Amino acid sequence: MVETYEQEQNVDKIQQLNEALDSGMFVHVRMMLNDMPPSDVAHLLESSPPRARNLLWKLVNVEREGDILNYLNDEIRNNFVDQMAPQQLAQALEGLEIDDLADILGELPESVYLEVMASMSDQDRHRIEAALVFPEDTAGGLMNIDTITVRPKVTIDVVLRYLRMKGLPDSTDSIYVVDTRDRLLGAVSLATLITSRPESIVEDVLNGEVETINASTPANEVAQIFERRDLLSAPVTDDENRLLGRITIDDVVDVIREEAEHSLMSMAGLDETDDTFAPVWSSAKRRAIWLGINLLTVLVAAQVIGLFEETIKIVTALAILQPIVPSMGGVAGTQTLTLVIRGMSLGHVVAGNSRWLIMKELGVSLINGLLWALCVGTLTYFWFSYTGQSLLLAIAIAGAMVVNLVVGVFAGATLPMTLKKFNIDPALSGGVILTTITDVVGFFTLLGFATLFFA
Amino acid sequence: MVETYEQEQNVDKIQQLNEALDSGMFVHVRMMLNDMPPSDVAHLLESSPPRARNLLWKLVNVEREGDILNYLNDEIRNNFVDQMAPQQLAQALEGLEIDDLADILGELPESVYLEVMASMSDQDRHRIEAALVFPEDTAGGLMNIDTITVRPKVTIDVVLRYLRMKGLPDSTDSIYVVDTRDRLLGAVSLATLITSRPESIVEDVLNGEVETINASTPANEVAQIFERRDLLSAPVTDDENRLLGRITIDDVVDVIREEAEHSLMSMAGLDETDDTFAPVWSSAKRRAIWLGINLLTVLVAAQVIGLFEETIKIVTALAILQPIVPSMGGVAGTQTLTLVIRGMSLGHVVAGNSRWLIMKELGVSLINGLLWALCVGTLTYFWFSYTGQSLLLAIAIAGAMVVNLVVGVFAGATLPMTLKKFNIDPALSGGVILTTITDVVGFFTLLGFATLFFA
Repeated sequence: MVETYEQEQNVDKIQQLNEALDSGMFVHVRMMLNDMPPSDVAHLLESSPPRARNLLWKLVNVEREGDILNYLNDEIRNNFVDQMAPQQLAQALEGLEIDDLADILGELPESVYLEVMASMSDQDRHRIEAALVFPEDTAGGLMNIDTITVRPKVTIDVVLRYLRMKGLPDSTDSIYVVDTRDRLLGAVSLATLITSRPESIVEDVLNGEVETINASTPANEVAQIFERRDLLSAPVTDDENRLLGRITIDDVVDVIREEAEHSLMSMAGLDETDDTFAPVWSSAKRRAIWLGINLLTVLVAAQVIGLFEETIKIVTALAILQPIVPSMGGVAGTQTLTLVIRGMSLGHVVAGNSRWLIMKELGVSLINGLLWALCVGTLTYFWFSYTGQSLLLAIAIAGAMVVNLVVGVFAGATLPMTLKKFNIDPALSGGVILTTITDVVGFFTLLGFATLFFA
Repeated sequence: MVETYEQEQNVDKIQQLNEALDSGMFVHVRMMLNDMPPSDVAHLLESSPPRARNLLWKLVNVEREGDILNYLNDEIRNNFVDQMAPQQLAQALEGLEIDDLADILGELPESVYLEVMASMSDQDRHRIEAALVFPEDTAGGLMNIDTITVRPKVTIDVVLRYLRMKGLPDSTDSIYVVDTRDRLLGAVSLATLITSRPESIVEDVLNGEVETINASTPANEVAQIFERRDLLSAPVTDDENRLLGRITIDDVVDVIREEAEHSLMSMAGLDETDDTFAPVWSSAKRRAIWLGINLLTVLVAAQVIGLFEETIKIVTALAILQPIVPSMGGVAGTQTLTLVIRGMSLGHVVAGNSRWLIMKELGVSLINGLLWALCVGTLTYFWFSYTGQSLLLAIAIAGAMVVNLVVGVFAGATLPMTLKKFNIDPALSGGVILTTITDVVGFFTLLGFATLFFA
């Protein structure tokens, strides 16, 4: 039977499983779980609150645990792994691909790691140690070492007979041609193998222009190469062009997803690996830090207002107008910040074109600054006409608006590149720094202008 | 020669090209451009300010324009397409894959579309019309129709000879087995073709459990299926299980990237297809709308402050403390909002578990509300001790803090699902509605409590 995927079905399944769990039908749940593909079980676990999640995990068959761990979000996986005895973990991880195994083992505390390694076969141990040489977020960390290699002088027929005997690792779309010193000469796609005449020589049909990735290439660049070239897989080599392994698109898709999510989550002070259904206390602790940082910045802004307490005493209308300028500056700056952060992560914004971009954004901010200064100024003039001070108030807020929009946008355009130079994540800290700037400048300019006029 | 990709090289190339452009060395630039893969030219165009971009586009060889258009961001592509005569466009688009072609043609104004179609071959016209039946953001819109199909009863040897004669379309990793009425029976991967004995019958080696996607499945669900199942391609069928085409991972990667970017960009009132290097005026116009919406919301907040003008006149310290509560509520709410939006787009947050999630988030907000109320209350007590009103001020701000954090987080948790029910994009409008709520509630509670105490 051909199986047609239905999102509806999946939602129903979550519902059914929850009901079965609630009514204690554990045998039924166990059967359902073990009928689902491991990626679906992982998704179900990720979609469950802690109590249900732990129950479900206990009902999973031991020999499927490794596969499921492999599909789980980092935070949840580490939680389960922490609860497992090293022996049990080693058993669960048997049969995983080396790159996935290295990912999981790389996160373990030293002592557990050593115990797990001790209960593995010599061959697997050597392969994992080789994989762990490369940092997780490089091509070396992403690659798998299950490449099929052939020599250039053999015929396609010989290759085909060899493959029929040996089989092909999962998601293999190319085999690689290497010389006697393991240096990569090129690739032969399965399509080429199939469509070439059997008596052809490998050398004559190989693709020598295959996109090759150095093991030290950062993961996000690997993702860009795959996206830009529409690759399904690519060979990974060392500095001497020796073949080390291959990267397949499924691992790259994870990088693309995580990278894109990173900006979104960081801008709210969250982490892309955060578990949506984490328990209350652990969530509260993490969020508290971000709220604490925000409190410090808003206290700075409050201090700025404090400088002008005397002016506010004379002109209370200022307290009413006060939120407008910082808010508009913050929004304008955040738009630029987001655009630049996205542009940098796509590789569009580089040193060579950033000056043009900054000038352009300043132009945009000046246009919008003048436009909204006019609107808000006019509005203020009529709104506070009863005070008899409304013309000066209007001028103060209009002036503050132009200044704060230009400053906010300038900060939004320049912060990401500046922070990156100091190796600070612009998505995480850019927004906080930006709104501190727009708050301080917003309050200072409005109340400053007002003090000049009224004090 | 095996070519190793270097980000550095690419940045250098942009630099070189810009210098060559500036010094008018157009022949040189044309040579460089036509040596680059179309995806790199597209990337270069996306990374160039308007003037350089238009110059570069003019230097591209006509027969490469179609390929390059295919890799370009929607906004930039539409710009170029608008400038081309229909005849020229039809010529440029020749040789593109049908799904890509349909994407480009689907965006054209009716009159241009008809002219372009008129200058195409009958066969291409029919194929495009068939592809345009499905909306762009469904499986049918993503699919390509260049599938290879075979009958179940033939031998692998016959299939191999047939493929050797006919060749394989790009990124084919499976061929499909259909009955006489085109109904899908299963798939045979190239790996299976290679490793099966030539005398085997297709029927005996086919994979009947292949993940099949209905043509009406939304694109984001297609992306989830590909991610979850680590697919490289999948057959697309109609409601009667007839094979219509296939989707390949390269098209899905674009969906994943765009979907993930959509949330990030929307939260700043931007669009994921926005051109980073758009001209000043068109950027200014678009941003103005978002700033205008924000102005309306902050004016509502200002009105709320206005209600309490008399209280502020008596206790000016309130003007200083005023920004703290709305800011903290906004940050706490945005964290929850972002988490829930991400959870929904990953399919983790569904009706069945949303109640648990809302309760959990409320728990988190209460803990943080109490924590920061205590901090800010204590701080206020000492900060304004000189006024002699600092105890009541401290109680007012602490109370407002708890209320606003709980309200903000409740709004952040419930808004995305509520908005989705009304078919409103939560990422685009959720943030604006949320901060309006936290501003209004923040100001109202602080100033309201203060009025109770002091008026």
